[in-house]
Amino acid sequence: MSLPLKVGMFGGGTVGGGVYEIMEQTKKELFKAGGVDVTIAKICVRDVNKKRSFELEKHTTMVTDYDEILEDDSINCVVELMGGVTHAKDVVFKALKKGKHVVTANKALLAQLLPEVKSLVAENAGTTLGYEAAVCGGIPIIHNMQGSYVGDSIQSVMGIMNGTTNFMLTKMETEGADYAAVLKEAQDLGFAEADPTADVEGHDVQAKIALLAKLAFGQDVALDKVPCAGISNLSSTDFACAKMMGCTIKLVGTAALGESKDKLAVFVSPVLVPLGGPLASTRGPGNVVVVRSENLTESVYAGPGAGRYPTANSVVNDIVRLARLGAAGTPPPFPLERPLELEPDFEACFYVRVTAADGLGVLSAVGAIASEAGVSVHSVLRGGEGGGGGGEEAGVVSLVVKTDSCLRSQVGAFVDGLKGKKVATADPVVMSIL
Amino acid sequence: MSLPLKVGMFGGGTVGGGVYEIMEQTKKELFKAGGVDVTIAKICVRDVNKKRSFELEKHTTMVTDYDEILEDDSINCVVELMGGVTHAKDVVFKALKKGKHVVTANKALLAQLLPEVKSLVAENAGTTLGYEAAVCGGIPIIHNMQGSYVGDSIQSVMGIMNGTTNFMLTKMETEGADYAAVLKEAQDLGFAEADPTADVEGHDVQAKIALLAKLAFGQDVALDKVPCAGISNLSSTDFACAKMMGCTIKLVGTAALGESKDKLAVFVSPVLVPLGGPLASTRGPGNVVVVRSENLTESVYAGPGAGRYPTANSVVNDIVRLARLGAAGTPPPFPLERPLELEPDFEACFYVRVTAADGLGVLSAVGAIASEAGVSVHSVLRGGEGGGGGGEEAGVVSLVVKTDSCLRSQVGAFVDGLKGKKVATADPVVMSIL
Ligand SMILES: NC(=O)c1ccc[n+]([C@@H]2O[C@H](COP(=O)([O-])OP(=O)(O)OC[C@H]3O[C@@H](n4cnc5c(N)ncnc54)[C@H](OP(=O)(O)O)[C@@H]3O)[C@@H](O)[C@H]2O)c1
Ligand SMILES: NC(=O)c1ccc[n+]([C@@H]2O[C@H](COP(=O)([O-])OP(=O)(O)OC[C@H]3O[C@@H](n4cnc5c(N)ncnc54)[C@H](OP(=O)(O)O)[C@@H]3O)[C@@H](O)[C@H]2O)c1
Repeated sequence: MSLPLKVGMFGGGTVGGGVYEIMEQTKKELFKAGGVDVTIAKICVRDVNKKRSFELEKHTTMVTDYDEILEDDSINCVVELMGGVTHAKDVVFKALKKGKHVVTANKALLAQLLPEVKSLVAENAGTTLGYEAAVCGGIPIIHNMQGSYVGDSIQSVMGIMNGTTNFMLTKMETEGADYAAVLKEAQDLGFAEADPTADVEGHDVQAKIALLAKLAFGQDVALDKVPCAGISNLSSTDFACAKMMGCTIKLVGTAALGESKDKLAVFVSPVLVPLGGPLASTRGPGNVVVVRSENLTESVYAGPGAGRYPTANSVVNDIVRLARLGAAGTPPPFPLERPLELEPDFEACFYVRVTAADGLGVLSAVGAIASEAGVSVHSVLRGGEGGGGGGEEAGVVSLVVKTDSCLRSQVGAFVDGLKGKKVATADPVVMSIL
Repeated sequence: MSLPLKVGMFGGGTVGGGVYEIMEQTKKELFKAGGVDVTIAKICVRDVNKKRSFELEKHTTMVTDYDEILEDDSINCVVELMGGVTHAKDVVFKALKKGKHVVTANKALLAQLLPEVKSLVAENAGTTLGYEAAVCGGIPIIHNMQGSYVGDSIQSVMGIMNGTTNFMLTKMETEGADYAAVLKEAQDLGFAEADPTADVEGHDVQAKIALLAKLAFGQDVALDKVPCAGISNLSSTDFACAKMMGCTIKLVGTAALGESKDKLAVFVSPVLVPLGGPLASTRGPGNVVVVRSENLTESVYAGPGAGRYPTANSVVNDIVRLARLGAAGTPPPFPLERPLELEPDFEACFYVRVTAADGLGVLSAVGAIASEAGVSVHSVLRGGEGGGGGGEEAGVVSLVVKTDSCLRSQVGAFVDGLKGKKVATADPVVMSIL
């Protein structure tokens, strides 16, 4: 039931160029193998005169006017690889309304406008939406979430979904380097952008974990409902303490069902993860997603999370699946809605690093404030004095409190108490421990 | 384009019982979610009076006569979960000839009769074959091989695909235990069978890597063309030496394309794998598959490789995919044939443990025999004397030779020389180093 596709592609940059290269290189073999018939007929870019990384074949035209693709009734599939939300929204929405299939790598668009996109796909019968490349570039996590847990019950999805920060955290772990130094190195190497906010503050992961939460639990999760902590306040002290606890630190997006199965916690934060496990073993720019479920206990998907060919590979998988199996053969893009309550609070053991003025009473003050907040202290480590973190002064001490299992909100109260009573001389660093 | 399925299932044991439980538990929700309509109408077993782990619903009958299912024209899907080759072959072949879809977990059947099964699926238009559960129980590796590399070029597939031996090797690694002790423990725990040959000699992995080779490279690989070494000659000395080399030991199935891309090496053997990597990090009964490819560089799939619910979960994925998307929506079970040459030889660095009578001339004798075989020695470690391995005698020494990169056949000549010249007092242990 193959479906010949005439594709209009928006974007001919990093990913778009890769898609074009792969499709042109493999199209003959794909046709032989399964009657896959894909022609990229038009590519829309901002500037047709820009030098491209690929050779344009005769059957492809470069255009700048969106309607050359959107109003062309012979084009039945739009591939959106421009990025951004404003223009991409115009393109994707209009394509679906015109009954065209859509493949996109745009996590920002999907995470922000998920309900609208969902309705448009549903209303325009026969259209499908592929978005494999939108989460963890080269890892086929979307397709596996759609098809590998159909009789299973997912308990949690957790992942390292940002290569830039994982590159930085790996450097901090292995070289004992400090945050500012690794950020500069990542920027020099082109791994991090001049304005690294979206990566280091976790917003990129926020969009991805919202999409995975939708797939795993059927729950629309608005981005502003996903608490998000980044890595910019981590120091080498934290890595040294993590190591003493048999852990390292990763920026993790988590979506987890509560025990009662009616509450869902979705959040992004740095987490202490045990050495030797799949999260700790994911190094450099690699990504990984760990799914816990009733039937499979734990399943792990790891691979490159970004980059030209990995991301393009996922886009090509989406295109070819559609061409090979027809619209009927592509799985429903989103699962059924489920009545869950978003729960901003969650239970865990926590790591709290408190920077305090050194002195005799510090420990008892910290202990008293913990008790007031209902936080039971499991142990206290003393981090490096003075030079422990970024810019700590002499006479200042780092205390690392490991809590027993408690609620995130209780740790919040503990931290507020530390600040309110001026025991903490800087914002405490809070991480959950896996 | 959903396809209502009336299923006849052969087997109601570990996996069959799990499939029945999961289907009955989730069928209502699956119907709501995507019009999935699956009824397990009949289950064929040997003994209908045996006590089962599941409650039989009214719509299901237990039978013992194959034809009650195979000759029932209202049954359009056969799920084969009996195991063995003789009877399973009768069932699967007849089902396909009758135009019924087939889902099976039977790696032995597929690996032995792949060409016949392939032809039957092709000849009986409209039939499909699902076999996700046949390789690495709960890991969706078949489906990912079918759909996640369509525009990619796979260079190698490698994996830990036998939970029993990985459980044993993990014990040997972490507890310094010896082979005989961990085998006994695995048998006591029900992880290993009374006759452990199929597991410990690698035959189970042989069938699985042959199937993955087919999927990755389009090559039919006959089982007797897959060189196979097991783990029964490994000792605690090997683990101690591996550790000194920054490695541990895993039983790995490998299918790798040569540099010229026209030769394919497929083999099973214990391998020294670097600590911290995805193979070394897979512990206990877990499985993992690592795919190296041009677009994705390295992608990793890990999860439970066997067991009632993981395996049943994969069977259910196959059934539901068919029911949800119709025959047109299930990917072609096998890729196109490719003209590759099976190459029994392959290049690597090797680990060769030589047990020799202790004496002054041993090292130079070993060195001379290596030179004759064209094997360049990278380094030599001295393993534990006397008590190093299983049952070594006093006056006997273990020398561990690490070779530079060379051919497996050259190492074979080296080993033959060691034995021929009676330098080795026992069969040397040979492993490649990853
Ligand atoms: N790069 C990755 O590793 C990666 C990974 C996962 C997901 N993604 C997603 O993939 C998408 C594309 O990323 P990219 O890295 O390929 O971006 P890119 O290299 O900047 O390419 C963007 C392309 O879109 C075109 N374009 C941008 N705005 C346009 C507009 N208003 N009208 C017409 N054409 C426009 C550009 O045209 P010109 O060439 O003429 O400037 C360029 O060809 C984004 O949604 C991104 O989040 C990327
Ligand atoms: N168990 C796992 O973890 C696992 C993992 C991956 C793949 N698999 C594969 O799944 C298949 C089933 O394994 P299993 O562990 O479920 O086996 P099992 O527990 O031994 O169950 C076999 C079932 O098949 C029935 N059966 C066997 N021979 C039969 C015959 N000649 N006629 C009619 N019925 C027959 C048995 O009937 P009675 O109940 O009446 O004896 C029993 O219900 C095998 O191919 C195996 O390789 C298993």
